[in-house]
Amino acid sequence: MTTQTTNSRVLSEPSSQFDDAIKTSFLGIRDGKCVYSGMFEKNWRVGDVPHGGYVASCVLNAFRQYFEKRPQTDPVSLNIFFLSKNIIAEFIIEVWSVKDSKKGYALAYAALRQKKIPSQIPIISIDDYNPSDYSEQRIHAITTFGDYATENGLTLLTEPTVPPSRSAFTLKDFSIGNAGLGPLIVWQPDLSYFSTEITPGKPIANHSIAFADGRKPDVWSLPYFADMFYPPPALLGRDTLGGDMWFPTMQMEVQFKSVPVGRDMVCAFKSRHIINGRFDVDGELWDEEGTLVATTRHQCLIVPWSRNSSIPARL
Amino acid sequence: MTTQTTNSRVLSEPSSQFDDAIKTSFLGIRDGKCVYSGMFEKNWRVGDVPHGGYVASCVLNAFRQYFEKRPQTDPVSLNIFFLSKNIIAEFIIEVWSVKDSKKGYALAYAALRQKKIPSQIPIISIDDYNPSDYSEQRIHAITTFGDYATENGLTLLTEPTVPPSRSAFTLKDFSIGNAGLGPLIVWQPDLSYFSTEITPGKPIANHSIAFADGRKPDVWSLPYFADMFYPPPALLGRDTLGGDMWFPTMQMEVQFKSVPVGRDMVCAFKSRHIINGRFDVDGELWDEEGTLVATTRHQCLIVPWSRNSSIPARL
Repeated sequence: MTTQTTNSRVLSEPSSQFDDAIKTSFLGIRDGKCVYSGMFEKNWRVGDVPHGGYVASCVLNAFRQYFEKRPQTDPVSLNIFFLSKNIIAEFIIEVWSVKDSKKGYALAYAALRQKKIPSQIPIISIDDYNPSDYSEQRIHAITTFGDYATENGLTLLTEPTVPPSRSAFTLKDFSIGNAGLGPLIVWQPDLSYFSTEITPGKPIANHSIAFADGRKPDVWSLPYFADMFYPPPALLGRDTLGGDMWFPTMQMEVQFKSVPVGRDMVCAFKSRHIINGRFDVDGELWDEEGTLVATTRHQCLIVPWSRNSSIPARL
Repeated sequence: MTTQTTNSRVLSEPSSQFDDAIKTSFLGIRDGKCVYSGMFEKNWRVGDVPHGGYVASCVLNAFRQYFEKRPQTDPVSLNIFFLSKNIIAEFIIEVWSVKDSKKGYALAYAALRQKKIPSQIPIISIDDYNPSDYSEQRIHAITTFGDYATENGLTLLTEPTVPPSRSAFTLKDFSIGNAGLGPLIVWQPDLSYFSTEITPGKPIANHSIAFADGRKPDVWSLPYFADMFYPPPALLGRDTLGGDMWFPTMQMEVQFKSVPVGRDMVCAFKSRHIINGRFDVDGELWDEEGTLVATTRHQCLIVPWSRNSSIPARL
């Protein structure tokens, strides 16, 4: 493995806004763990916090590099646990093996860590990495990688859900929670589930979504799209929720089903069970051709918006 | 913490078959990790392998003891990753903290390890525990615990699924895959989805289930019930599958929703997406009163039965 630095990668590779933002650079090996550094970009935020799906794709990008020299180069599943609020600043991701395999599936862990007072410049050398400085573990992740080309056996879709019809979608600015990422995506939700001034909505978030700069969806962006929604309970409206709320994710899982093709995604998310402020989100993601490419399940909380930011949710 | 030994617990506590089988005894602390020992009982097997949901409840039982002196005593979620085939023999579970919390949710890891050639007697003292002997990691698990009494906020069930009607259920012996656990449960599946000699079935496994000895379901047995099903793709039948198959679980998640009451459970499991021999299972579990107590999602494989056992699946 070679040491990539942030600068060399920026200068040598054409890139998209998303690829720039999820960039994680391999620094070297420390205590048996592969160490990557990166930087949460302020544009990919909701309120004061980096967007959870964006964080998940940063982690998957470290896993991608970890596995690219191994027999398993394709993501099969990703489980992310959010331990504490990420800060829009530099971070370190440590990746190490859970299970190696010559032909079968392999599993690896990741821990995303930040300093108590992180800087705005990622470190570029393993010599600058002092693990005790990065005392705040923000994320625990575990992934399974495989080789799609060697997977074989029965294929049978039973009761497959059909992607929601695009005719229900309306182009809208993604402006919830003082989000910085509105201009980065083309978002077309089904507004019929949204609350109005007189009626509550339903916790069903269907939409099409694409990167604004034309970058095509691929497996590496699926964790982002798997969390990139108007939180379904938010659609109930402020009156039902009792004010402006934040919907932090405790944990999320992505199961990778197919490689997306085309320019955009059609997604359906639903929160069927909201119990004492804790809720689930079940989601399905289809590519432009209507092929199911991923499923996702989250567990999240409804908490006052002030837990995210001192700046009001609605400016 | 005190050191519990296997014997003291057997002698001092009234117990059920399930509680005896999931017993994990705290040995002490080694390298900052709490160490528990236990033994996979041969009756709780499918083929040559301990049943996956039974394994999951063994792990949760270690977590239960780990958290019983902490502010969080209630399981909120459990994610289990199966790394290699468990052997019906003794095991060690190491548990350590991912995130402590005074009032909020706390997370912990577990690693279940066995010796390359394990014995049939669990160790009963930390002095007998040599980590390098337990070289085979079988399970990685991560759990979130909380305090149900302090969870508060909105409760709203949107499009809740209704438990399948008991009128469709028929009492049957659970005899798939040379399972040893048939006599341990009262199992009443909906046979209408099963294959017949002339038609394939559907990968939908609905049933009621109870412990044969009358032990009531509780949160600690939910991981068992969340995996204790006729694998939905098995219902398609041998002709569709191309022979006798094993359906090992790669990973499973349980989200805990409510504390079960009553004597039995009603459960619905479905494999909607079988793609190149890899499939998901979505499940919902209700208690006797029809309250949703847990959801589960799995990722599993379809492999030839010979990967489990040299003894044919159908004797």
